[in-house]
Amino acid sequence: MEPLRIDPERLWHSLMEMARIGATPAGGCNRLTLTDADKAARDLFVAWAREAGCAVSVDAAGNIFARRAGSADDSEPVLTGSHLDTQPTGGKFDGAYGVLAGLEVVRTLNDHGVATPRPLEVAMWTNEEGSRFQPSCLGSRAFVGDTPLADVLAAADTRGIMLGDELERIGYDGDQPCRPRPVHAYLEAHIEQGPILEREGKPIGAVTGVQGKQALSVRVDGMNAHAGTTPMEVRRDPLVAAARMVTEIDRLARAARPDALGTVGMFAVEPGSINVINQNVAFSVDLRCPDDATLLALAESVRAAITAVASEQGLAVHVEDISVNGAVAFDERIVSTVERAAESLGYACRRIISGAGHDARSLAAICPAGMIFIPCDGGLSHNEAENISPEQAAAGADVLLQSLLSLTAQT
Amino acid sequence: MEPLRIDPERLWHSLMEMARIGATPAGGCNRLTLTDADKAARDLFVAWAREAGCAVSVDAAGNIFARRAGSADDSEPVLTGSHLDTQPTGGKFDGAYGVLAGLEVVRTLNDHGVATPRPLEVAMWTNEEGSRFQPSCLGSRAFVGDTPLADVLAAADTRGIMLGDELERIGYDGDQPCRPRPVHAYLEAHIEQGPILEREGKPIGAVTGVQGKQALSVRVDGMNAHAGTTPMEVRRDPLVAAARMVTEIDRLARAARPDALGTVGMFAVEPGSINVINQNVAFSVDLRCPDDATLLALAESVRAAITAVASEQGLAVHVEDISVNGAVAFDERIVSTVERAAESLGYACRRIISGAGHDARSLAAICPAGMIFIPCDGGLSHNEAENISPEQAAAGADVLLQSLLSLTAQT
Repeated sequence: MEPLRIDPERLWHSLMEMARIGATPAGGCNRLTLTDADKAARDLFVAWAREAGCAVSVDAAGNIFARRAGSADDSEPVLTGSHLDTQPTGGKFDGAYGVLAGLEVVRTLNDHGVATPRPLEVAMWTNEEGSRFQPSCLGSRAFVGDTPLADVLAAADTRGIMLGDELERIGYDGDQPCRPRPVHAYLEAHIEQGPILEREGKPIGAVTGVQGKQALSVRVDGMNAHAGTTPMEVRRDPLVAAARMVTEIDRLARAARPDALGTVGMFAVEPGSINVINQNVAFSVDLRCPDDATLLALAESVRAAITAVASEQGLAVHVEDISVNGAVAFDERIVSTVERAAESLGYACRRIISGAGHDARSLAAICPAGMIFIPCDGGLSHNEAENISPEQAAAGADVLLQSLLSLTAQT
Repeated sequence: MEPLRIDPERLWHSLMEMARIGATPAGGCNRLTLTDADKAARDLFVAWAREAGCAVSVDAAGNIFARRAGSADDSEPVLTGSHLDTQPTGGKFDGAYGVLAGLEVVRTLNDHGVATPRPLEVAMWTNEEGSRFQPSCLGSRAFVGDTPLADVLAAADTRGIMLGDELERIGYDGDQPCRPRPVHAYLEAHIEQGPILEREGKPIGAVTGVQGKQALSVRVDGMNAHAGTTPMEVRRDPLVAAARMVTEIDRLARAARPDALGTVGMFAVEPGSINVINQNVAFSVDLRCPDDATLLALAESVRAAITAVASEQGLAVHVEDISVNGAVAFDERIVSTVERAAESLGYACRRIISGAGHDARSLAAICPAGMIFIPCDGGLSHNEAENISPEQAAAGADVLLQSLLSLTAQT
C-alpha cells in the first residue's frame, strides 16, 4: 500500500496565508511575540484548527492546543507543533512551518477518515523567539515546569511591558492551567536554519539533540560628558570599552572550537547623542557549542575578558546570566521513528544536531521528544530572505505524518 | 560710580524655574528640541520677555527674538542669547544660562531706567544641541544664511519626523523671514563645559574662538542570520566590524595631538535581537581639534581606518559628512570688550578657546561676535549633574551687562 501523504498545495497555501500576517516589504515577517500581528496569527491558527474539527484550548501562558480526538481518547496524547512568533526581521517559515505542518497532518487524517488510537494535539508555544521577552521558549518552559508561570508572566520587554499584561491585552491569557501533564511523545518539524542538509542534498534531518547555549546580559557604566570639551585622558567612555569586549567575544568564540559560536545581538547605548560621551552601554552575549565543557569554558573566558576590559578602563560592569542551557539529547526512539518514516517515503535522511534552541528542547524534560528538520535556502534564517520550496515543505510534513501515525498507534 | 550689576537672586530664580521644565529625576533636564518640553520652555521665555516690555518675534526657523527698543531705535541692534533645548540627559545651564542672563540684563536696564542708544535683542536659537536633528545650531545657521531654510525645515530625526513639521506642531513656525539682517554685534554667555576656568579659579573666560569640528555618519552593512546556526567563518557581522572601528577612532584621536578629540556618541544596531547576527550598524563620529590641519588629517585617517576594517571583513560601509566646521576666531574687539568689562567689575578673566560649538560660531559669519564663559563644576556638561553656583551665574551676567552697555553705546 502506498503510504499516506499530505496535500502539498494546501500546506503551501497555509504557509503563504500565514506569511501575510506581519509581512515586511523585504519579503519576511515581523510577528514579534504578543503584538497585534502575533494575535492575528494566533486567531488564524485557531480558526483553521476549529475548521479541521479540533477542540482548541489555551493555557495560562498563552500556549494553544488544537486537539484531534483519538479512538482511545483517554490515552496520553501525542503532541506536535512549534511557534508563530518571529524575530523583528524574521522569515516566513521559522516556527510557522511546524505549526502548519501539524495542522496539515490533522487535515490529511480527516480527509482519509483515519482514526488514530491516541489523540493528537497541535501545539503553538508562546514566545519561542526570545526576542521581545527573555529567555526564549518561555511558553514551553512554563508548560514543562522548568520556569514558574509567575516568572514567565512577569517577564518584561525593554519598555517594561510585562508578558502577562500583553497576553491579557490580546486575549490569549487562557483558562487552562499551564503545568506538566502526561504526554506520550512530542515531535516538532522545523527548518534547519543552517546549511548542512542543503549542502548534502538531504531533504530530511532526524534531529538527535540541541547544542548547549549560554546567554549573558552585560551593562557597562561610564560617565557621560560633552564630546567637544572632555579631554581624552579623563574620559570614561563605556562604548570604547564595550567595543573591545565585542572584539574579544568574537575572538574567543573563534578560538574555542570550530563549532563554537559567539554573538552580540542586542546592543544599546545611552543617551546615544552625537556630541555626548555615553553614560552606559547594554548588550547581550549568545554563546553556543555542542560540547558542554567547551561551552562552560568559553563562557568563563568571556566573563573574564569583559571584567578585564572594564577594569583596565576604570569602568563598572554588570554581567548577568539570561539563560544557561546545557546540550540536550533527544530520545533515540523518536529519532529512529523519524528515520524509518523518511525511509518508508523514499526521502534521504541524515542525523543532525540542532544549532538553535527549540520548544522540543523544553518538552524533552517531560516526554520522549524529537524534531524533523528540512533544508532552507543557504541555511539562512532569522532573516527576511529565509526561504524553502513547496517540495521541501511537503517532504517534511509527509515524514511528520508518518511519524505521528506510528507514535499515535503506540500502546 | 559703582558699575551696574544684575540681581543675582532673580537670575537664579529664573534659572531654577526654567529647569523645572523637562526636569529629570537625576536633577538634569530633557528638553530635546521641538518636543513639548521645548515648547513649554519657549512659552515661559516669551511670557517673561513680554513682562519685561520686549517686543517678541519668531522667524521661520523658530528662532525667537525679544527686542528692547533703543533710544536710537533704527540703528543696528546688538544681539545676545543662546538656546533652551538640551541633550536627552542634559543639565540645567547649557543654553538656558545665556538666554536667561540676557533677559536679566533687560530687566536690570528696566529697573534702573537705562536707555541704550542701540536696541538690544535677546535671541533664542532653534536646535542648538544637534541631538535630535543634525547638524547642531540649525536655527542660527539658517539665520546667517549658512544653511538654506528649506534644508533646515526638512531635517529629519531618527523616526523620520521633520523639523519643520515639529515647529508647526508646537506653534513656533514664526511669521518673520529667517535670513541675515544687519546686526551690530553678538555676545553669548555660556557655561564653559570644560575644566579650565574652575581649575584656575577664574570666574570669567573671554572666548577667543571655537575649535574645528568634523562630524561623520557611518553605516556598516552586514548580513543578519541566526546566532545559533551560522558558523563563525561565514558570518558577516557588522557589529564586530563597527566595534573595531570604534577602537580605531579612539586610538587615532589619542594619537593625533593632546588636544584632539574623537567620540562615537550615536550607535544603533538593527535588528538588535539577542539571538540574531545584526544586519547593520549606524553610528556617528565627532572629531574636534583647535588646529584645522590636524583635524583634517585626523578625519582622513578615521575614514581610512573605517574603510580598511570594512574591507578586511568583506562588509559594505557608507561614510557621510554630517558637518565640517573649521575653527572660527571671534572678533578681537568683542574679546577685549569682555575683558574690560570683567576688569571693571573686579572679576579675574582669562582668554579661552571653546571646545564646543555654539550659535556664536554661526553669528560670527555676519557680525562681530564673541562669548563669555563661566566655570561649571568639574567641567561637566551634557550630563544631568551639570552644575554652577548662583555667584558664578551672577558674575557672568554682570560681565554680559557691562559688555552689552558698551556695545549698545557704540556708534
